[in-house]
Amino acid sequence: MLAADQRAQLRFDERGLIPAVVQQHDTGEVLMVAWMNEAALARTLEEGETVFYSRSRQELWHKGATSGNTQRLVELRVDCDGDVLLVLVDQRGDGVACHTGARSCFYRRVEGSPGQDAAAAPPLEPERAG
Amino acid sequence: MLAADQRAQLRFDERGLIPAVVQQHDTGEVLMVAWMNEAALARTLEEGETVFYSRSRQELWHKGATSGNTQRLVELRVDCDGDVLLVLVDQRGDGVACHTGARSCFYRRVEGSPGQDAAAAPPLEPERAG
Repeated sequence: MLAADQRAQLRFDERGLIPAVVQQHDTGEVLMVAWMNEAALARTLEEGETVFYSRSRQELWHKGATSGNTQRLVELRVDCDGDVLLVLVDQRGDGVACHTGARSCFYRRVEGSPGQDAAAAPPLEPERAG
Repeated sequence: MLAADQRAQLRFDERGLIPAVVQQHDTGEVLMVAWMNEAALARTLEEGETVFYSRSRQELWHKGATSGNTQRLVELRVDCDGDVLLVLVDQRGDGVACHTGARSCFYRRVEGSPGQDAAAAPPLEPERAG
């Protein structure tokens, strides 16, 4: 359970969820975005590793529990409205956050947008992460 | 309107929205998280500055149109599932993204979380930004 002062900082949506932006604490890479409910957030704080809520499986999900690609919690911030979390982590294991095997889930550029395809494409073994 | 190849990359939710994580392109700071619908994304690509969809006002919102704190689009990425955008920008104006006057909306640490209160508190003139 969250403490009262923690709950007072946060606004979960009508489904009881809050989006969590996961960022590598030292490089600033945005690794992934997932969702937490109150139980996932409480476990993240207690265990010091990220635990999310899977909307598709409707259950808690300890990131990296099977792959070893856990995320050590470094710092947890909340935005001005209280409805988004920024989770600063140290990405462990193979250093891979995305279930495709890419370092970050954001490896694709939107077609027609400015910039270059600088983000690495996922490697050949997409099942190793997750 | 988005092009067909753009739309094929993206999954808007049941409300027609997609969350957009806004990151300063050179420092890696996560500045804010807002929402886009298809029209907001199309205008962002056309105008080269961020345009969001305000859920509370139910209208498009050209970030910084009144405050001058616009965000020049540098690169636009989408995650592996196609349901979150990462918007790399150059924060203009006073360099302030948050309507409170803080550089980033994530200036608060969640109570009881590890880390330090390293993020700057908002300055004294909270109405200048937005």
